[in-house]
Amino acid sequence: MKLRYYDLAAADPDVRLSPFCWRIRFALAHKELEAEAICWRFTDKEAIAFSGQGKVPVLQDGETVVSDSWDIALHLERAYPDRPTLFPDGSGIAHARFVKNWLETTVQFPILQLVLPELFDSLHEQDKAYFRESREARFGCRLEDAALPAEKALPRIRAALQPLRLTLADQPFLAGDQPGLADFIAVAPFYWAAAVSSTALLEADDPVRAWVHCLHDRYPHAREGCRFKNAQPG
Amino acid sequence: MKLRYYDLAAADPDVRLSPFCWRIRFALAHKELEAEAICWRFTDKEAIAFSGQGKVPVLQDGETVVSDSWDIALHLERAYPDRPTLFPDGSGIAHARFVKNWLETTVQFPILQLVLPELFDSLHEQDKAYFRESREARFGCRLEDAALPAEKALPRIRAALQPLRLTLADQPFLAGDQPGLADFIAVAPFYWAAAVSSTALLEADDPVRAWVHCLHDRYPHAREGCRFKNAQPG
Repeated sequence: MKLRYYDLAAADPDVRLSPFCWRIRFALAHKELEAEAICWRFTDKEAIAFSGQGKVPVLQDGETVVSDSWDIALHLERAYPDRPTLFPDGSGIAHARFVKNWLETTVQFPILQLVLPELFDSLHEQDKAYFRESREARFGCRLEDAALPAEKALPRIRAALQPLRLTLADQPFLAGDQPGLADFIAVAPFYWAAAVSSTALLEADDPVRAWVHCLHDRYPHAREGCRFKNAQPG
Repeated sequence: MKLRYYDLAAADPDVRLSPFCWRIRFALAHKELEAEAICWRFTDKEAIAFSGQGKVPVLQDGETVVSDSWDIALHLERAYPDRPTLFPDGSGIAHARFVKNWLETTVQFPILQLVLPELFDSLHEQDKAYFRESREARFGCRLEDAALPAEKALPRIRAALQPLRLTLADQPFLAGDQPGLADFIAVAPFYWAAAVSSTALLEADDPVRAWVHCLHDRYPHAREGCRFKNAQPG
């Protein structure tokens, strides 16, 4: 049976909004696995109730159900060991986990602050109240007060990316000589941003941008059927 | 022939000041290699002129001379493959490199800002003018203006350590199940700080502090003959 996963969509079902789902899109493309991406919205809780929780991505692999992007990646690696590895030499699980924690605590929030108004506008009407309420509780302020204009958000995003930028001066991918889960975790927010915003996150000559474009060219399957405001993420 | 390395000292030769040398102390202890740490000061440029540059650590391994803590670690791994590895499963060179770039761009500077007055006071008289001039050129301001009081520096240090803290919730070491170079790079600044300052960098219940203490207990050889203002780094 073909793999299936639930993927967060905007009002436009071809606009895919979750950085966590983007990780899985890249991981599946890297492992050369065919999978059906099922359009899902924040308030479609019943559709994924079978997973025992309420967030995407959720993967169905035959009888096996896995939620959480980290656990899904580990499942794909274990279940398909003959496919290209998500953990190439030099970059094991410990590396991908640290990159995940680094990205989620430093890079992801200023990107969200930048795209927040456009992200909110892109949502299906049924999701807007849920998104506002859950995010305002998390941020401790109104969405409008959490958002940052580009002239404030971009310097924060670019500064936060400095460890990645320095690493790419010495090796082509975050995972080393070959791309791996560490790369897919780090590239995912660029796709999330590009889905709803035409703002370029990086300067034209930023090596991080060259790395995004390299992954973009390498994994066309990851974005198949998806629509973007910025056709060149980064 | 025994390994020898040049190690930055304060006026008190038992106070060792370089976070880069502390990486090598831990790497040598982990690989169970005996080495002589030669007391060196910033202005002893002639003593290490044979290395073709002017900074420590410099390692002499028989006829081989290696400078730069990163290259020294890679040399030790290559030259002593039968000793415990610096790159255990899950944490290869790509991981250690990213941790290095993360640490140097986020954690190391606020620690320096915290300990700067005590660090400067600890220096040998012959080094003070050199240190002031080189660091003021690098920071673009006077040492006194780069320094931060504890109430400003500590929250920055603790926030910067969040990716490490989250990672330690899922695995005992940054390198995974076993410690590796990634851990030694990240623990080094705690020893640099403890050499000159009695200020605790972390809250008593911080998991990062438990990790520092675990490495402290595991590698007594790394600190052999060294004197500290804070006998419990962290």
